[in-house]
Amino acid sequence: MSVVVRGIRRADQSTVDGLAALGVATIHEAQGRTGVLDPRLRPIYAGAHVGGSAITVRVPPGDNWMIHAAAEQCRPGDVLVVAPTAPSETGYFGELMATAVQVRGVRGLVIDAGCRDVAELTTMGFPVWSRYVSAIGPVKQALGDVNLPVVCAGVLVRPGDVVVADDDGVVVVARERAEAVLAASLERERREAATRERYRAGELSLDVHGMREQLAERGLTYVDGQPPDDH
Amino acid sequence: MSVVVRGIRRADQSTVDGLAALGVATIHEAQGRTGVLDPRLRPIYAGAHVGGSAITVRVPPGDNWMIHAAAEQCRPGDVLVVAPTAPSETGYFGELMATAVQVRGVRGLVIDAGCRDVAELTTMGFPVWSRYVSAIGPVKQALGDVNLPVVCAGVLVRPGDVVVADDDGVVVVARERAEAVLAASLERERREAATRERYRAGELSLDVHGMREQLAERGLTYVDGQPPDDH
Amino acid sequence: MSVVVRGIRRADQSTVDGLAALGVATIHEAQGRTGVLDPRLRPIYAGAHVGGSAITVRVPPGDNWMIHAAAEQCRPGDVLVVAPTAPSETGYFGELMATAVQVRGVRGLVIDAGCRDVAELTTMGFPVWSRYVSAIGPVKQALGDVNLPVVCAGVLVRPGDVVVADDDGVVVVARERAEAVLAASLERERREAATRERYRAGELSLDVHGMREQLAERGLTYVDGQPPDDH
Amino acid sequence: MSVVVRGIRRADQSTVDGLAALGVATIHEAQGRTGVLDPRLRPIYAGAHVGGSAITVRVPPGDNWMIHAAAEQCRPGDVLVVAPTAPSETGYFGELMATAVQVRGVRGLVIDAGCRDVAELTTMGFPVWSRYVSAIGPVKQALGDVNLPVVCAGVLVRPGDVVVADDDGVVVVARERAEAVLAASLERERREAATRERYRAGELSLDVHGMREQLAERGLTYVDGQPPDDH
Amino acid sequence: MSVVVRGIRRADQSTVDGLAALGVATIHEAQGRTGVLDPRLRPIYAGAHVGGSAITVRVPPGDNWMIHAAAEQCRPGDVLVVAPTAPSETGYFGELMATAVQVRGVRGLVIDAGCRDVAELTTMGFPVWSRYVSAIGPVKQALGDVNLPVVCAGVLVRPGDVVVADDDGVVVVARERAEAVLAASLERERREAATRERYRAGELSLDVHGMREQLAERGLTYVDGQPPDDH
Amino acid sequence: MSVVVRGIRRADQSTVDGLAALGVATIHEAQGRTGVLDPRLRPIYAGAHVGGSAITVRVPPGDNWMIHAAAEQCRPGDVLVVAPTAPSETGYFGELMATAVQVRGVRGLVIDAGCRDVAELTTMGFPVWSRYVSAIGPVKQALGDVNLPVVCAGVLVRPGDVVVADDDGVVVVARERAEAVLAASLERERREAATRERYRAGELSLDVHGMREQLAERGLTYVDGQPPDDH
Repeated sequence: MSVVVRGIRRADQSTVDGLAALGVATIHEAQGRTGVLDPRLRPIYAGAHVGGSAITVRVPPGDNWMIHAAAEQCRPGDVLVVAPTAPSETGYFGELMATAVQVRGVRGLVIDAGCRDVAELTTMGFPVWSRYVSAIGPVKQALGDVNLPVVCAGVLVRPGDVVVADDDGVVVVARERAEAVLAASLERERREAATRERYRAGELSLDVHGMREQLAERGLTYVDGQPPDDH
Repeated sequence: MSVVVRGIRRADQSTVDGLAALGVATIHEAQGRTGVLDPRLRPIYAGAHVGGSAITVRVPPGDNWMIHAAAEQCRPGDVLVVAPTAPSETGYFGELMATAVQVRGVRGLVIDAGCRDVAELTTMGFPVWSRYVSAIGPVKQALGDVNLPVVCAGVLVRPGDVVVADDDGVVVVARERAEAVLAASLERERREAATRERYRAGELSLDVHGMREQLAERGLTYVDGQPPDDH
Repeated sequence: MSVVVRGIRRADQSTVDGLAALGVATIHEAQGRTGVLDPRLRPIYAGAHVGGSAITVRVPPGDNWMIHAAAEQCRPGDVLVVAPTAPSETGYFGELMATAVQVRGVRGLVIDAGCRDVAELTTMGFPVWSRYVSAIGPVKQALGDVNLPVVCAGVLVRPGDVVVADDDGVVVVARERAEAVLAASLERERREAATRERYRAGELSLDVHGMREQLAERGLTYVDGQPPDDH
Repeated sequence: MSVVVRGIRRADQSTVDGLAALGVATIHEAQGRTGVLDPRLRPIYAGAHVGGSAITVRVPPGDNWMIHAAAEQCRPGDVLVVAPTAPSETGYFGELMATAVQVRGVRGLVIDAGCRDVAELTTMGFPVWSRYVSAIGPVKQALGDVNLPVVCAGVLVRPGDVVVADDDGVVVVARERAEAVLAASLERERREAATRERYRAGELSLDVHGMREQLAERGLTYVDGQPPDDH
Repeated sequence: MSVVVRGIRRADQSTVDGLAALGVATIHEAQGRTGVLDPRLRPIYAGAHVGGSAITVRVPPGDNWMIHAAAEQCRPGDVLVVAPTAPSETGYFGELMATAVQVRGVRGLVIDAGCRDVAELTTMGFPVWSRYVSAIGPVKQALGDVNLPVVCAGVLVRPGDVVVADDDGVVVVARERAEAVLAASLERERREAATRERYRAGELSLDVHGMREQLAERGLTYVDGQPPDDH
Repeated sequence: MSVVVRGIRRADQSTVDGLAALGVATIHEAQGRTGVLDPRLRPIYAGAHVGGSAITVRVPPGDNWMIHAAAEQCRPGDVLVVAPTAPSETGYFGELMATAVQVRGVRGLVIDAGCRDVAELTTMGFPVWSRYVSAIGPVKQALGDVNLPVVCAGVLVRPGDVVVADDDGVVVVARERAEAVLAASLERERREAATRERYRAGELSLDVHGMREQLAERGLTYVDGQPPDDH
């Protein structure tokens, strides 16, 4: 049975936008080193950085019909998250569909498969994080689902979860934890700013973080001169 | 036996140039979703877009001697298509060879192996679509063939076929079908332009293409609220 | 036992800088087509080109503690070379650590694993050659070694060896051979400049290098017209 | 925070055993073509076929400490399901741990990483489905979780879900749906037995399933003789 | 347009059977080191060795409908060769379809995608060479072609070409060349038998094939003792 | 310059044979979790287990000439270790060469490339650990080196080092450390035997190794019942 779920819950837009302004690596750390999608998903152009509420789409291999159905469920501030039911290198998404969803305020696409028209998407400023760039076009013959939970690039994404993507990749934050993760991320940024200043001043991380003793305790030894031949 | 075939037939230059101005994805669709090379072939820099008649080269693993032999067979408007007889990550092609073929009017290179000197090739404006960027250099010790049919990145390319490449990848059009594919591609572009306008005006593809009924017939169901926990 | 070796020998800085100004492909050829790291290592931004003396680091999977220990051993003109003891897609290195080592004069990082904060690293002009871009963060719990020989991306790198990296990848030159390889590389560049001029003037490599006779001897045959159907 | 959840719910053992007797492909079809883990997971020996209730384990890269913690939570009829928090080729599991869990009635292991001691595991009859066979050993230094939901090889597995594995791979059935999927699988087997008899008698699937008309409607055409040269 | 070509030409059955008795490596050498499919195609069980006339099938990603249509075109002594139009890890083929084509005398399947039911196929003695073993099932919704030329795993296969497969992989012989390749293969086997006897008697290949002089001419040098440290 | 080094030093045969009787995983642990080659190297048949002194061979891509030169340097108890100078999927080694080296007492081959004739090699009982099985044959046209240090599948192997290979993969032990590693391996086996007995008796590793306190200290928490929905 194929389903489109309407009227999903989303996180507060201010929380979403707060997360959207932060880096993927920071959010990942702040929520306990979880939620990063497989690094094989790469942005189609450098410098893209978006965040939004996930509209999730399950698509059959090589078939993008359900992305059309998903477009209607999108609101300004959303991000499309598309997972094929079997691995696929098809280019599911291009400039025409981007036009259709960009006018609805969709901020970007995350897809564990291929996308195409990357020159046009770059010009439009519609970012995509995909596993492949592939000119191979999809068909429209089989059903899937919209707004059911999906596993995308190895991570569970539920509709309404917050998705943030930048040059480092893509991270998902559970909707219920979005506010807490935002707070933890901001706190982490503050701490890092202080560290950065000390590093810029020439201090070593060994000293800033008191690592020397810990390393010695674990058994780290310092020797002088070239390493022995018998390594 | 190793062979260089001279004086191959090419498509009309105006047809070649017409196809060269179109996108790879469009041509692929217009000829029935065929002809796209493996998406692992990627351009060495963004924004490159060329088309031309294929000069095909079969090379032994790690050996680029036959590309030198192929250079003599090139005319303005040609594109070199190189396939190794066994998979290879060697950088078969660099700035020196690009210099030699660019003066003969060659528009670019498609190679199911490695290329190198990508900084220099970018400066020269000589685009390459390759599977690897690799500084590992080739030798010149074994023969191959020039202008026999090759399978390059999973697709049959015959000498004189039309090859078009852009940011989305590479597509091949059989020489005999070039004119027909050009016409079908232009027709497709016209249709897409009309669709694009309706999308920009905010219409949904579900409505523009009358998909609602088809989806319902296949059994698509709409439900409201969050998805059930048992997914 | 974990070890940090202090006070390693380096090549003369003028030799290092001489090699740093040359291309990876050139150096590779000049030292007998050896020393290139696996082409899966790619720069995080185009146009980066550095060379320096290797500070080598062995890290456990997912653990970057030893890079902190390595930072103290770095001098201006060094390049960090990091190899995990088991394959890992973790993002071991980001903007904070780059800040810490950039103030010490480190020129770049080569890592057979992941790196992150690529937008910030690009802004800072701190280049990294890595196998992955990955937001997944490391822990700091287990020891490794600094300045022991490592195999990085398939190639042996000893502390103090010269590492050069550009858009084509990464090459290693043994410290003891650095001067000789520099001389051979410069000689190679001179020869190539002469060849380039002849290519630009329209000469064919077949003639410039006297290949016609060699090819004929090996059995290369020229035929006219289309290739036969039975290929 | 790291957690071990005790006393998870499991499906009825008779239902689990019913599913364990069926093929992975059959179950996958019967639950709507879902639930199959990435095909890169392969059995370490041919002919293994098990099913059981999932004990789920999240492990850091290269660290198997939590599998030790998980062993205590296992009951007869369970299957261990291990997912690393970052991709890893470490051999997390070998003959010693297999000895420890086999005496507790564990039927097998599914791991999206490496395993080792495959000769001994084969002799013991303890099957493992893994992404790699790898002699690289793990450490015991960092925490993870036991019996929280995991994404393993691209599929969500919750503790107590039913996992079935055979020569074709691994499939997961949600605990709540286990009974229904068992019934649907048995029904599917009955239908397939009837089809098999007709195929054995020489009937064509085109006729058994009435496909001729459907194919013709979609536009399939029959032509005689060799295909045209222009394919 | 989708097409099924009926009544294709095949090579003489005696020639086909002669080739079927030979090894893939031998045939590959005998026809000038060409025709081997990508080594990622592997047999589902060890010891399988078949040869036959190719019935070629182009299938959409994840859709096996055309294999049903192809079954009708098979005759005793044929081998099915299936290529997806876009890369796919779906398990297109299982025990039921094997039953249907085995009664028609089909000797095996070569598929550049997934297959399933490998335990049952092994029991039946129906060998498959596939890129993946995958329990993920196909749909039956879209058309392809039967008996048009296909590129399968990087090699052109035309209907009626001879396909031979063993533990080393798969090789294709053009129908028109089958007889000549058979003769060359047998001649090669005779030569190798003589060489084998000399090797068994303890002679070195350097002497049997007179390589010492050639190696010396090219510059090979012999030195005694351990290699120098500076390698 | 190409070189064959004659008369290399080997470890004591009794030490080599002692290591050859041990498992790869055990040796790897005993020498500090180092020395395992990339897990992509797999044995061509199950159950093979050999150890010997390394004869190292550097081969150009697709060219096996130097393996012929290496054969002469082999003594009973040796293992051939072959590394291509650029990645290659060619089948460098088959039954004929195995015949030639088996009569000289060579125990097996480790190759970071392809091998072929696997059915014949299995019958002969000549084991190979390779990255690919590939029917694609090599040429004999270019030189390499014999008995210089090589990096094979990511690990440095020097001539005369001890190589052990089994179903888990391949490990290298530096010649100078062979005796010490043998002793450490045997000690490790003794400890493991004791642990095995306790596991067989039903004890948990948590208790056998006193892990409970360590886990609690690090912060591991036990909770009862199903995991919360918000994972």
